[in-house]
Amino acid sequence: MPAPDGVELTFPDDGGCFGCSPSNESGMRLRFRREGSRVRTDYRIPDRFHGAPGVAHGGIVATILDEVSCAAAVFLADRFVVTGELTVRYASPVPVETPLEVDAEIVAQSHPRFAEIAAHVRRDGRLLARSVGKFFYHERPSQP
Amino acid sequence: MPAPDGVELTFPDDGGCFGCSPSNESGMRLRFRREGSRVRTDYRIPDRFHGAPGVAHGGIVATILDEVSCAAAVFLADRFVVTGELTVRYASPVPVETPLEVDAEIVAQSHPRFAEIAAHVRRDGRLLARSVGKFFYHERPSQP
Repeated sequence: MPAPDGVELTFPDDGGCFGCSPSNESGMRLRFRREGSRVRTDYRIPDRFHGAPGVAHGGIVATILDEVSCAAAVFLADRFVVTGELTVRYASPVPVETPLEVDAEIVAQSHPRFAEIAAHVRRDGRLLARSVGKFFYHERPSQP
Repeated sequence: MPAPDGVELTFPDDGGCFGCSPSNESGMRLRFRREGSRVRTDYRIPDRFHGAPGVAHGGIVATILDEVSCAAAVFLADRFVVTGELTVRYASPVPVETPLEVDAEIVAQSHPRFAEIAAHVRRDGRLLARSVGKFFYHERPSQP
């Protein structure tokens, strides 16, 4: 059952994840909400995560896209997943310290073992980076 | 001209990069050396970068692979690059706080605008994750 629309969502277990844990002070602390068939997060990338000055590191952009894709599996399909393959395409530099719109949607669920999930990073509606990946189903993770 | 073999290498400009800058205390501070046709880094991923407990976040693995790929362009081909596309395949969980062997090699340079670069993360010789990407040539970045 999908999560309720428009409500702030956090992962059920707080294991200190770099992407989404409220307790990981060096992490991103991403928050999610469902908007129809998508999961969305608004995020301003801190300057410490830059590659070239002023520009988010490509790996950090990948981290955000991976994280929101996993959130889509949890909050849209009620499934925990691990990333099997992720392809990121960088269209334009992603600036740090700038409001970004990030979302993900499940594009295919026909395979019994994994979902295909697409995600996007936009600024003022303009696409800066996008990903598509295979996310393998697994059991709910145990507490540390 | 490739960098000398076996010597510790740092990027020519320290702009505070999350992946490789000695001055970014929250970053990875990766160091590189050339070994023949590869650039290599040995790295122990700090616990704060985990996703599931004990396992490196997939985006952090992507960050390491992206970073060593860019280092391969600089130290093997003397070219600065920006990441255009990166595909990461996760074969097994990458543990945190564990010595990892990371390397990258240029697999194609026939295109005038980009190089194709492959990278790997191994533990005790066993492949845990790998990537291949298109890295577009650009001018040497200016200082911030």
